[in-house]
Amino acid sequence: MSKELRIIPLGGLGEIGKNMTVYEYGRNIMVVDCGVMFPESDMYGIDLVLPDFDYVVENQDRLRGIVITHGHMDHIAALPYLLQEIEAPIYGTPLTLGLIERQLAEKNVLHRTELRVLARDETLPLGPFRVTPFAVAHSIPDSVGLVINTPAGTIVHTGDYKLDETPAGGQATDLAALQRLTEGGVLALVGDSTNADRPGRTPTEAVVRDTLDVLFAQARGGRIIIATFSSLLARLQEIVNLAHKHGRKVALTGRSLVENVELASKLGYLQVPKGLLVDIDTRVPHKDLVVLATGSQGEPRSALNRMANGDHRHVRVGAGDTIIISGGTIPGNEEDVGRMLNKLFERGANVVYGRLATVHVSGHGSRDELRAMIETVRPRFLIPAHGEARHLHLHAQLGVEAGLERENIFVLKNGAQWVSDGQKAWTVESLAVQDVLVDGRLVGEIGEVVMRDRHRLSQDGFIVALIPVNGKRQLAGEPQLVSRGFVYLNGARELLEAGREEIKKQHRRGTKDMARALEDFFYRETHSRPVVLPRFIQV
Amino acid sequence: MSKELRIIPLGGLGEIGKNMTVYEYGRNIMVVDCGVMFPESDMYGIDLVLPDFDYVVENQDRLRGIVITHGHMDHIAALPYLLQEIEAPIYGTPLTLGLIERQLAEKNVLHRTELRVLARDETLPLGPFRVTPFAVAHSIPDSVGLVINTPAGTIVHTGDYKLDETPAGGQATDLAALQRLTEGGVLALVGDSTNADRPGRTPTEAVVRDTLDVLFAQARGGRIIIATFSSLLARLQEIVNLAHKHGRKVALTGRSLVENVELASKLGYLQVPKGLLVDIDTRVPHKDLVVLATGSQGEPRSALNRMANGDHRHVRVGAGDTIIISGGTIPGNEEDVGRMLNKLFERGANVVYGRLATVHVSGHGSRDELRAMIETVRPRFLIPAHGEARHLHLHAQLGVEAGLERENIFVLKNGAQWVSDGQKAWTVESLAVQDVLVDGRLVGEIGEVVMRDRHRLSQDGFIVALIPVNGKRQLAGEPQLVSRGFVYLNGARELLEAGREEIKKQHRRGTKDMARALEDFFYRETHSRPVVLPRFIQV
Repeated sequence: MSKELRIIPLGGLGEIGKNMTVYEYGRNIMVVDCGVMFPESDMYGIDLVLPDFDYVVENQDRLRGIVITHGHMDHIAALPYLLQEIEAPIYGTPLTLGLIERQLAEKNVLHRTELRVLARDETLPLGPFRVTPFAVAHSIPDSVGLVINTPAGTIVHTGDYKLDETPAGGQATDLAALQRLTEGGVLALVGDSTNADRPGRTPTEAVVRDTLDVLFAQARGGRIIIATFSSLLARLQEIVNLAHKHGRKVALTGRSLVENVELASKLGYLQVPKGLLVDIDTRVPHKDLVVLATGSQGEPRSALNRMANGDHRHVRVGAGDTIIISGGTIPGNEEDVGRMLNKLFERGANVVYGRLATVHVSGHGSRDELRAMIETVRPRFLIPAHGEARHLHLHAQLGVEAGLERENIFVLKNGAQWVSDGQKAWTVESLAVQDVLVDGRLVGEIGEVVMRDRHRLSQDGFIVALIPVNGKRQLAGEPQLVSRGFVYLNGARELLEAGREEIKKQHRRGTKDMARALEDFFYRETHSRPVVLPRFIQV
Repeated sequence: MSKELRIIPLGGLGEIGKNMTVYEYGRNIMVVDCGVMFPESDMYGIDLVLPDFDYVVENQDRLRGIVITHGHMDHIAALPYLLQEIEAPIYGTPLTLGLIERQLAEKNVLHRTELRVLARDETLPLGPFRVTPFAVAHSIPDSVGLVINTPAGTIVHTGDYKLDETPAGGQATDLAALQRLTEGGVLALVGDSTNADRPGRTPTEAVVRDTLDVLFAQARGGRIIIATFSSLLARLQEIVNLAHKHGRKVALTGRSLVENVELASKLGYLQVPKGLLVDIDTRVPHKDLVVLATGSQGEPRSALNRMANGDHRHVRVGAGDTIIISGGTIPGNEEDVGRMLNKLFERGANVVYGRLATVHVSGHGSRDELRAMIETVRPRFLIPAHGEARHLHLHAQLGVEAGLERENIFVLKNGAQWVSDGQKAWTVESLAVQDVLVDGRLVGEIGEVVMRDRHRLSQDGFIVALIPVNGKRQLAGEPQLVSRGFVYLNGARELLEAGREEIKKQHRRGTKDMARALEDFFYRETHSRPVVLPRFIQV
């Protein structure tokens, strides 16, 4: 085995080095993070996308451990799938481990790992790696970046971060610790690129707190309903504090929110004054109540969307209610969110969202922060990670602006193998990786062919033509058409009748490619292209 | 017939009063605008959505004419469909009529109308209506708002507008003319609400021009490729001017862009210095060239997306190219645009988009501008229009802030009938209207059932089970399964074999609802729910 360090970024859906990173030295592998992507809107029927961890599975005998930076789904939720194939210890801070434990228990794989606490002032030895976490500000408490000492040099793996000096929960990114830990020089910075296309700095969480404070004061007689991500625990803490300040109780609705609040309270990451939390079905005057709900993305079965549709069991939205969407809209969800907002307004509520007031800020640093990180760490090599190609390239441009040599910046793809001997760095042949699609219980069994079929079915539906023939392949009865998603059959008797006549005509002519002939016929008639599947039935 | 004025807003996809408005007085109807909506991302297979113009068709004998405010598709592109059902004269400014003429000619309905020029200083009599246009600043030249005098009072119908004092092309919103025309008082303001959720003012086009100027200067040795909407003719004029200033030729790629530039030049709305335009296949040094391309929305077959995919016939993108996306991303297109940007970066280009620089501004006014309009017009009644429910409600809030009485503000839905006798105003029973879906040649034939089927097919595909039976309904051979979009059949032989066994088992048991039994079986096996259609075949 060569004495070289390898870094292999993995991810899904165009996100590079987001969900998982493999570090390798000699006969030793460690993995950082193991998360999922949620499908894009044209990935019909897909629940989740996993990174391709074949390489880790094939080399499991060399795996020393899995280190997790924080507890968001895109960094932890593939663990249950990986642990179905391998056994390995998982290291993380206490809240992160708490969230992981729940994920693993749900999928019955908890027994296949040991969860070990990664303490912030300790160094974890993993084979030739020495891993020391440092605190970072992000939208979930207990987030860390990693300083990874290897025989080839020191790597800084930032994880998700922003440089917020007044963050929620009080955990700022600990640049002082980072400087101390990297005094001996840094071989490479593997840095979060999420907001590399946003100029300036990401606003501090303190702005959100101040805005919410004003909105709480203005709401006076009415109820306040706030939708946010259940994983945005730092935001939840602010809202709890404001409710306390303004003399309101807090009720929770939405399973993930209830679970996360319970877990974070138990572990001490959420401080809730006694008596502040009430059950959602408790009768509290509207002026004294804050409802915290899931649904900032307009998800169909989320609490806020149920309120919008008038079918939430406990909350009936109306005039006097102030509804605050305290979460950014994830690209692809704009239409769902828009429809939900429309319905909430139509019920008479005052809804605050988007640009109307700063009720949400990103958990990732913008360009000035990424630049400050580069200048703090002064790495020999920069590996932009955690972003799509456009973000990585814009992060790379920033590296050049910050004084790094262009040839020392590596914009990689998933599966790329970055190699360094501690002096030089280069890439070698990439691993063949692909997105692994999860659809119900089917993991990796849905591929391109099925996705293409689903797309075509979604556009124009299908027609199965049942054509009865006798032993001499002569027509032996009336053809039948079975169809869905094409035209509404009751309204298209003539079209289908014409279709059956076409089958008879083509059969008389001895047409070989009946599917093609029928596709052409229906296209001529409708300018649509349903999937056509003829089946000859021997009768 | 009563001596009352009626206003009926029409639109599609949640947009209220956007695509069409009906004005009615006594036995007289006039229509303002007649446009389409483009489908949302979950409206599988749909090309266009038309407003429901049944009411206009049923009352065509009373229709005095159709007045169009400007030449954007959401205001003109339903005219060919309406003219297939009725005949009526169309009034508009010269550029608007030019764009309409092309639409009508393509659909062979030009002979069913007369296109009549609406001059800006003239008053058009249409039955009891007197229509006087006033200039508005918008992202296409020759846009107008309408002052409509009726026996019940004066209506101001703004059309799309912003209050840009330094607009592209030099056409500002003529508030002086509007004040003069409304000296006698205004009964109702029917006002654009598109950006009612944006605080402040929409930035002026002059900012875009200045930003582009800087980017042109920075591009030096390389080619500049700019993607924008082909209908954003004012922006095209700026780019032409900048190319001239910086000594570059301009080449066009994308059919709609070539056609619009030709039309606008012919009619004098686009001033192109002689010799500036070159064919896209002309050999020009990169430092001397600007390529104007369609594709700001990442549309699959647009010019810029072809460049991103490396299959544009004339332009091969590479290092040195500066690519500017000078058009906002329409909600629902974020993922397509993101993928295109990734590919352009991967080809080595420098891409400027989104927040990186102000290379696009909206053509619609923000809250301060909507408020200025209310204060200029001082209407008795406010009818927020041209927006989804959330925008209308936020526009209504603005009306209250500007001093109007809450009960004098009418947030309507499509098909609502607003009625006024010149003193009071009220609503009467709404018309039953629905979105009319266009799929190829099928107009209005695709309804909810088909859309639901397409959605389900897209998620999990289908299985048609062919079950051969004899005259006694006994199984008379092996069942066959025809399936697409469920699982990849070659990889799922065992599953399908088990499915066939299940059919036999259920048939032996005498199961009545075979579809349900098979749905349950496949759900148990896969946690997916394909559409299951059993067909018993008499053999």
